[in-house]
Amino acid sequence: MTGLRLLGDWGSTRLRLWRLEDGQITDRREGPGVIGLQQPAADILLDAIAPWRTAGASRVTLCGMAGARGGLHEAGYAPCPLDAAQWTQRTAAFALDGLAIRIAAGCACDRDGGLRDLMRGEETQLFGAMALDPALAEGRHMLVLPGTHSKWAVVESGRIVSFRTFLTGELFARLRGSSLLPALAGEAAGDPAAFAAGVEAARDGGLLGSLFLARSAQVDAGQSAEWASAFLSGLLIGSECAEMAGAVPSPSPVRIIGAPGLAERYAVALTRFGTGAEPNDAEACTLAGLRIVDADD
Amino acid sequence: MTGLRLLGDWGSTRLRLWRLEDGQITDRREGPGVIGLQQPAADILLDAIAPWRTAGASRVTLCGMAGARGGLHEAGYAPCPLDAAQWTQRTAAFALDGLAIRIAAGCACDRDGGLRDLMRGEETQLFGAMALDPALAEGRHMLVLPGTHSKWAVVESGRIVSFRTFLTGELFARLRGSSLLPALAGEAAGDPAAFAAGVEAARDGGLLGSLFLARSAQVDAGQSAEWASAFLSGLLIGSECAEMAGAVPSPSPVRIIGAPGLAERYAVALTRFGTGAEPNDAEACTLAGLRIVDADD
Repeated sequence: MTGLRLLGDWGSTRLRLWRLEDGQITDRREGPGVIGLQQPAADILLDAIAPWRTAGASRVTLCGMAGARGGLHEAGYAPCPLDAAQWTQRTAAFALDGLAIRIAAGCACDRDGGLRDLMRGEETQLFGAMALDPALAEGRHMLVLPGTHSKWAVVESGRIVSFRTFLTGELFARLRGSSLLPALAGEAAGDPAAFAAGVEAARDGGLLGSLFLARSAQVDAGQSAEWASAFLSGLLIGSECAEMAGAVPSPSPVRIIGAPGLAERYAVALTRFGTGAEPNDAEACTLAGLRIVDADD
Repeated sequence: MTGLRLLGDWGSTRLRLWRLEDGQITDRREGPGVIGLQQPAADILLDAIAPWRTAGASRVTLCGMAGARGGLHEAGYAPCPLDAAQWTQRTAAFALDGLAIRIAAGCACDRDGGLRDLMRGEETQLFGAMALDPALAEGRHMLVLPGTHSKWAVVESGRIVSFRTFLTGELFARLRGSSLLPALAGEAAGDPAAFAAGVEAARDGGLLGSLFLARSAQVDAGQSAEWASAFLSGLLIGSECAEMAGAVPSPSPVRIIGAPGLAERYAVALTRFGTGAEPNDAEACTLAGLRIVDADD
């Protein structure tokens, strides 16, 4: 045996791999996401870690879409409420070319009408965040993990008790090239005043009945496509925060686990809704969560 | 002069023209919508009505996107609250190849944050509906005009007092081919139970936080793409109704001015929200509204 451990987060759009030696990251590699792979997922993974195998690595622990149907190997969804011990019991483990592979289970949450909401990868960050900060593993807290499919989760006494997926990022991408937003519009974050106007619109009305304002502001008030882009970003993120801000346990702030630029926009919107916001390091949370799965053998 | 009158509704996707003789429709023609015209709009119109000019027609009254920037001739937006007399004062009138053309003004409504909502064409249907039914011109009523950009309007004492645009139809179209809805999914209306499940989801939560259920139901519960399509239709229409049903003046039902199949789906959703629904004939409303503009000279 060797002190080498390989950890990976294989999401829809990106594969990120880390090599740990005696608990310290000593190398990292990136690869393509699970969506639209041109080769079998197993080949991609084996190629990516080949140099580390030569150095003695014999096991890999992964989270995210690696465990989706059509990913590397299907892992199940563990239902909420869920603690770390219950979660690691659901880890999928199998052998690949002599390697021991472990894939973290996703997490499912009952919704009304017999439907379930799902996550894959964010549960790893949530358990990681609680491992890194014992205060988060006590009492009740709200966390947001912004992205293409944003997740809002309530954790209580170290368990994920419920969560909800918001299609914010995907909807924003889908609105590019629509009647609201010319295809060539710039980045969403460019205009803080327009972003703030979108957040305000989310406070004043529902999302579906306010989207058209992005167009009328261009037709009627001479605003630019860049303005409309930032307005829509504010309206979408604001609508997400409007729906969830009322559920935030007082007085704790919402923890934001996400990329810095996006996290900052959520912090602006949450502040406008009267809720404190506190950023967490997303990669640190992922790694801490993967260590929990990796340690459980 | 002659008894011939030409009326037209030139929208984004379709031009519809009617010939009236002594107040009766004696012919009708269709043509392309204002969006994506391959020839100048004036040429399209002159070609379409050429046979009727030979018969003696010398004036045309139009509503809809004909009056938009980039349409046939820009007509303004008359602000709410707006009665029929104020509206017809804002009609754009000009000569085209010896024809007298009149284009109905659109209508604008102040929203919070200094933004305005806009309509073009629906105001003609609203004034037409009030002309056809004197009961609608008294007291306060809510009307919905479903479509790509649905409009909800409050009319009171014969005036349009406020309205709001919902991007429901366009958003549904944009979600085709997304992670929620495979591009090849069938028509939305196919599955009444799935539509009803979408309406229920709109009752239980916000739109943005429920869209993902269309995907999780396929991944997790084995539902088909057709199911997801009808669910999304129900979720979108239900979210629209959820936002507006609380504003419906009691006890009058919501009047629906729209195509029969779509109107029926709105009636199902409105009934679920405890609001009565009453369909109106959309073409009759359009024609009645155009007659108001046509008569005002």
